[in-house]
Amino acid sequence: MSPETWESIAQRKRDSLYSLIPPAWRLTSIPSPLPLDVRPLIAQSNILTAAELAITSDHDATSLSQLIRSRAVTAEAITTAFCKRAALAHQLTSCLSEIFFADAIAQARVLDAELARTGKPRSQLHGIPVSLKDTFSVKGCDGCAGIASLVGGGAVAAEDAPLVDILRARGAVLYCKTNVAQTLMALDSVNNVFGRVRNPRNGLVTAGGSSGGEGALVAMGGSVLGVGTDVGGSVRIPAFCNGLYGIKPSCGRVPISAGRQQQQQQQRQGEEEVHGLAVSPPGVAEMGLTPSAGPLATSIRDCEMFLRVVADSCPWEKDAAVIYGPWDAQGTLSSSTSLFSSSSLSASSPSSGSSSSSSSPLVMGLLRSDGITTPLPPVAKVLEETVQVLRRAGVQVTELHGAKPLLKKCQSLANAFFNVDGNNHVLDLLDKTGEPLIPWLKGRLKRRPPLDMHAIARLHAQRTQLQKDMLRLWEGDEGPGKGGTRRRIDAVICPVAPHPVPEVDRWNGVNYTSAFVVLDYPAGTIPVRDVTEGDLREELAEEEERAVLGGWDARNKELWNPDTVDRRVYLNTMLSVQVVAPRLQERKLCQAMALIDELVKADGAARRSAKL
Amino acid sequence: MSPETWESIAQRKRDSLYSLIPPAWRLTSIPSPLPLDVRPLIAQSNILTAAELAITSDHDATSLSQLIRSRAVTAEAITTAFCKRAALAHQLTSCLSEIFFADAIAQARVLDAELARTGKPRSQLHGIPVSLKDTFSVKGCDGCAGIASLVGGGAVAAEDAPLVDILRARGAVLYCKTNVAQTLMALDSVNNVFGRVRNPRNGLVTAGGSSGGEGALVAMGGSVLGVGTDVGGSVRIPAFCNGLYGIKPSCGRVPISAGRQQQQQQQRQGEEEVHGLAVSPPGVAEMGLTPSAGPLATSIRDCEMFLRVVADSCPWEKDAAVIYGPWDAQGTLSSSTSLFSSSSLSASSPSSGSSSSSSSPLVMGLLRSDGITTPLPPVAKVLEETVQVLRRAGVQVTELHGAKPLLKKCQSLANAFFNVDGNNHVLDLLDKTGEPLIPWLKGRLKRRPPLDMHAIARLHAQRTQLQKDMLRLWEGDEGPGKGGTRRRIDAVICPVAPHPVPEVDRWNGVNYTSAFVVLDYPAGTIPVRDVTEGDLREELAEEEERAVLGGWDARNKELWNPDTVDRRVYLNTMLSVQVVAPRLQERKLCQAMALIDELVKADGAARRSAKL
Repeated sequence: MSPETWESIAQRKRDSLYSLIPPAWRLTSIPSPLPLDVRPLIAQSNILTAAELAITSDHDATSLSQLIRSRAVTAEAITTAFCKRAALAHQLTSCLSEIFFADAIAQARVLDAELARTGKPRSQLHGIPVSLKDTFSVKGCDGCAGIASLVGGGAVAAEDAPLVDILRARGAVLYCKTNVAQTLMALDSVNNVFGRVRNPRNGLVTAGGSSGGEGALVAMGGSVLGVGTDVGGSVRIPAFCNGLYGIKPSCGRVPISAGRQQQQQQQRQGEEEVHGLAVSPPGVAEMGLTPSAGPLATSIRDCEMFLRVVADSCPWEKDAAVIYGPWDAQGTLSSSTSLFSSSSLSASSPSSGSSSSSSSPLVMGLLRSDGITTPLPPVAKVLEETVQVLRRAGVQVTELHGAKPLLKKCQSLANAFFNVDGNNHVLDLLDKTGEPLIPWLKGRLKRRPPLDMHAIARLHAQRTQLQKDMLRLWEGDEGPGKGGTRRRIDAVICPVAPHPVPEVDRWNGVNYTSAFVVLDYPAGTIPVRDVTEGDLREELAEEEERAVLGGWDARNKELWNPDTVDRRVYLNTMLSVQVVAPRLQERKLCQAMALIDELVKADGAARRSAKL
Repeated sequence: MSPETWESIAQRKRDSLYSLIPPAWRLTSIPSPLPLDVRPLIAQSNILTAAELAITSDHDATSLSQLIRSRAVTAEAITTAFCKRAALAHQLTSCLSEIFFADAIAQARVLDAELARTGKPRSQLHGIPVSLKDTFSVKGCDGCAGIASLVGGGAVAAEDAPLVDILRARGAVLYCKTNVAQTLMALDSVNNVFGRVRNPRNGLVTAGGSSGGEGALVAMGGSVLGVGTDVGGSVRIPAFCNGLYGIKPSCGRVPISAGRQQQQQQQRQGEEEVHGLAVSPPGVAEMGLTPSAGPLATSIRDCEMFLRVVADSCPWEKDAAVIYGPWDAQGTLSSSTSLFSSSSLSASSPSSGSSSSSSSPLVMGLLRSDGITTPLPPVAKVLEETVQVLRRAGVQVTELHGAKPLLKKCQSLANAFFNVDGNNHVLDLLDKTGEPLIPWLKGRLKRRPPLDMHAIARLHAQRTQLQKDMLRLWEGDEGPGKGGTRRRIDAVICPVAPHPVPEVDRWNGVNYTSAFVVLDYPAGTIPVRDVTEGDLREELAEEEERAVLGGWDARNKELWNPDTVDRRVYLNTMLSVQVVAPRLQERKLCQAMALIDELVKADGAARRSAKL
């Protein structure tokens, strides 16, 4: 019996997925070619009721949670609405990989009955639909990471992953898993099994990866809260590409492991692990960089809610890799009491720079460039705009000049870590069915000999040294000798990427996100504003244009050079900033992000009303 | 120029160390042979004043701290007393490796003046002398780990280690470093540079290792608070051998790294790291098991004080390997409020076993054996006595039968991890001067090829699986079906070793301690009582005698067989128990240890008064 071809496996898997969409939720006509922005097709299909459109359009998870607890809407109604919308989203963007709508709706009914009986929600997530990246084990489902040879058979989860257990226990309703980049090691979510995830808002640009299905699903309104994993940028990049909030926590905060039996079985069989890790044999992730799981959502308070509910569910009792620490033990801004009474902050009179900001609750570090790839004009501009908003509100912002050489080192270390096993395992999995690499990985993912013990040890020593050197970053730049008192940095602000959301298969330079995996700092993205026509007319400063820092920088400049790109593709994308906090201080990160987000929004509102 | 011999290096180092002892503090006559118990020689020497004897004999660190803060005694007086006593202790037990008494006394004066001026102690450690294992970098001192080729030159620390920085900043007075096992990989503290650390109380038995100098120094009253490191039992074993309290925290609680420059320099030169790790090239520790640093002291409250002061000094800002978490974020017993009002506990009427203990603040798991080495009679007996004390006080004690197969796996994993680099680095260091291995390591420490990436990855996968499987241990044994409600285990009680404190070079079986390094659980020792004549008459049960579980068990039985041991060597040693808490819950461990210690002491006092 000859083995099944990858084409036939993929066709079977896609058909099976489609068959799980109830006929009434299938789009009878899909325009071809699709419009640039496919989001309006949801309402135009008339498959969702007005109430369902409102549930899925007008709320974040926190707001839905209030509706459920006040009994204004049932979990069943909410779940049904999101299942329907997810089904439509998938038909328009290929964002799903697994569907279990029927189970979800049944579970929502159970939760409604329980709430009616006890009056007590299990947590803020009670009745909230949560979507999961393909890599989380859900009993009975595949987790194939977009690789044909992993479909069915050994990849079918024997049990739920610890995170899945926790989410269910806390009342979340799980209803689908989402599409990823082939092998999880790419920044475009495309693979030979499910195809390419389309960016909902702008079909010309990438939806990002590797958690691109999550990004597209949430942007389509097909999910209000998604969980991705990030070992180089795989939560933050799709969040950026889809105008969402996304957080990569430090390792050990959110469980990423597979279930107990699952791993036992894999070890017995010498099989691959596919659980939020890059696809790798058991133990190999510990040799390199370990991923962490985090939320993608439409508000920072939803990201915070997800992390808080997980932290307060004793996840360290379910997954041995999770570090002890309830939410209240995950750091806080120095003067957090005054934080959320930010009306006083945003109303404060503009101060003349950072010197008068001693009353601010926040000291921000600023990283404009990683020294490898100069940010293109709109990226630099939105960062500078954000800095100005912060300074006007009295936040002290300190440029971290000393960090650039350290960030440069992060890049080569990350690359080395991604290659500890020489990619042999994942390439073997593709070779099983003769499946080709996706375009972005061709030339990038090559077989190499695995590193030996001493080479890996040297990488770890370099990482340790880098983490140690980087500690000084947080001490602040102004020495006591320079007049100002030295204040510790609360959080750092920097670009998510050196370019706006690029065309498909043109993602370039992952160091702005992967550096914080090497350093294991929690980091999140905040969508700031749309790209404007005006942005397209901005040019690099002459000296930036001339100084090509290397291969990455040269390729990056091609993304702005009129000879090599039509800048108009960037219209209908959003610009974001990244916020970074010290290791394992996820609560501090959320507080800093909330404050920045609030100031940016207040500033935007003030500008809009000034124009009126 | 021919390289210096190890004998000559060692002689020079010993002479240099002795020269740092002020002549007035030198013992003019040392009895030969030494008496079994050398402790009385301190007072007999008449070198310490009555006040100095009182300071060093009658207090733990907490009590001394109260004296300092109430200005009853100066830091200078306390430091001088401990320097003198440490000097005597060293002459009788070879417990020191580095001496910096003059710096210490000068620093104590600074601290006294500061306290007089400000009225504010820097912390509870203000003015308290703290001794350090040889492995912590102290600027200008060696850290040779008992290896001749590391004396002087590159091993001289260019700067203080982060822990040293923290201790100094918090007001601790550092005055000496202490002797260790050659290579740190043995359980007897003997090496060719400084010789063998003698057990103060009983010269026939071992002082333990690898932090044996700490154990002996504290037992001699030459230190009130010492810091060791433990990657197999190196804090807990010398604590046990010297009748002390000792705690090995989880990795990442107490900084163990060398200073920043130090490590940079070592990396540049490809030199060895000697910083609380087993002697290894940079990065290799990350491939295997990483050690953790912890206190040895004469009371549990002193251990707790040390861990609390360090945790509340933001150590994660000084050492990137430290995990975020102030002391209050390091766990707590479920109902800790009622914990220390234990008069009610010890006065409660004896309950009939564990079933009526629902009001107890504590649920203890019990591990009687690791399944590899059956504990000898006095070890089993003191454990059972402690269990009875706990049960009489209403504590629920649950035997964890399911843990044995998991503990067995820990042993082989630990062995494999200790050999990732095939011992080549450390044997190269010995070969440089032709220095021989110490007796215990001969035949144990052999050159092997370093493991390859896949072999190391498999070890990490096995460890991950083991840690995951072990999580169920904490859920408690009684399923809901068995009548009782299932209660989570707060802490586990088990032996420190399968034998009493053995004769020198006869330590056997490290799994009772190293298992909790593999699992990364915080664990500590509580001294319970002296070995009695009656204990020596106890025999193994007939079936235990017959069932030899393997090589380790056979060798262990030789430590009780009258043909192969004179059991009377065990008189004048103490029996201890080990307490273990879930990972990263150091505060919970201290609370559980304090409770057990209090109950055991109350029980002992009650027995003594009953006899009167």
